[in-house]
Amino acid sequence: MKYTLYIGNKNYSSWSMRAWIVMKHFGIEFNERLVRFDSFDDNSIFKKTILPLNPLGTVPILVDDDLVITDSLAICEYLADKHPTLSLWPNQTRLKAKARCVTAQMHSGYPQIRRYLPMNIEAKFAEWGQIILRDHRQVKQEVAFFDRYISSMLDKSEGAYLFGDFTIADAFYAPMCIRLKNFDITMSPKVADYIDVIWQTKGIKEWVDDALNENDFIAMDEPYRLNNKKRQ
Amino acid sequence: MKYTLYIGNKNYSSWSMRAWIVMKHFGIEFNERLVRFDSFDDNSIFKKTILPLNPLGTVPILVDDDLVITDSLAICEYLADKHPTLSLWPNQTRLKAKARCVTAQMHSGYPQIRRYLPMNIEAKFAEWGQIILRDHRQVKQEVAFFDRYISSMLDKSEGAYLFGDFTIADAFYAPMCIRLKNFDITMSPKVADYIDVIWQTKGIKEWVDDALNENDFIAMDEPYRLNNKKRQ
Repeated sequence: MKYTLYIGNKNYSSWSMRAWIVMKHFGIEFNERLVRFDSFDDNSIFKKTILPLNPLGTVPILVDDDLVITDSLAICEYLADKHPTLSLWPNQTRLKAKARCVTAQMHSGYPQIRRYLPMNIEAKFAEWGQIILRDHRQVKQEVAFFDRYISSMLDKSEGAYLFGDFTIADAFYAPMCIRLKNFDITMSPKVADYIDVIWQTKGIKEWVDDALNENDFIAMDEPYRLNNKKRQ
Repeated sequence: MKYTLYIGNKNYSSWSMRAWIVMKHFGIEFNERLVRFDSFDDNSIFKKTILPLNPLGTVPILVDDDLVITDSLAICEYLADKHPTLSLWPNQTRLKAKARCVTAQMHSGYPQIRRYLPMNIEAKFAEWGQIILRDHRQVKQEVAFFDRYISSMLDKSEGAYLFGDFTIADAFYAPMCIRLKNFDITMSPKVADYIDVIWQTKGIKEWVDDALNENDFIAMDEPYRLNNKKRQ
């Protein structure tokens, strides 16, 4: 029986994206169930669809027969166990530990970037990016840390990705790459190159293309616009 | 070669606690390196000791020969892989997926409880608990969710812990149990029983005893007291 993956709007749902691109990249077949972010009220269609599967009311959710997994990292670990030959994590023990480490850090970290630089694939917010860096010192600090940290990983990597070939770790860093690119945040050349590689990666490119074709403006996910008629 | 685990003050460091109690509970030997939270400034002894190992400047850190792992969940996953016969996760695929799910949710979730109900093992803050529930609706919501969520897991469990026997998931929920107990937050009977079980669990009990004997008052970790002379 095929997996089913519940996701939110592709333009906005940075958590959904991680599980989806891992499955697409590694060719793991699944039925996609996109549940539109109509609102996050308890009586929204989104919550009414998702809450019976996940009491937290969040996406992504992976359904495998009668097993329901409601966290993006746990979904990826489950898939890594189920498909050991696909190398969703690096094969080498040492690199696997490092990859899990930076993935878990992304899972719980970067609260300021998350708050002020939301993922919004079809929007370019160059001016807002500069205003946010000017006004929010903690965003600037997180960006600077991210830049140094990713650079040091890429220095040691034997491939174009964080740990050689594409792994779950890169999937977790992909939404961050999109945020930084769309807010036009200047990164060091190595990290800028990595962001370009991410953008063109199998799985990620498909997600981005779908997002660009979505044309669904969700006001609650748009702190910087009243509509998507005028693009910056 | 034995593992080395870097941790912070046992009375306060809820992240350090998770990795430490997993290792103690399952009898995985390690050298403990407790680095006191003198301050979180860059020139503190804490940061000067930790930053060369972990650019994020946080504990716990596991060192295994020349491998350094700087995230609590990644440490536990690494140990689970290295010691497969110890069953750090449930053996059954389905339960393992569920356990990973709630562990990852704890790793990134409950921001309001974290903020307003810090872990402080030797302190009893019953009155503060009531004030915080009265004044912060979001703390109350998170506590109510936690209570329902844990209850539903315990209903399905075939043991005293979340997924039968003690696993990494319980270690991740232990600091939350300590917070709720010390702020005297009323829980449903099943969850209250679970909190009592956690408190007496091998590994957790040792950590708590060490914390009680620490007698190290760290002002920056004490939003509700000026000193520890007067106990509530």
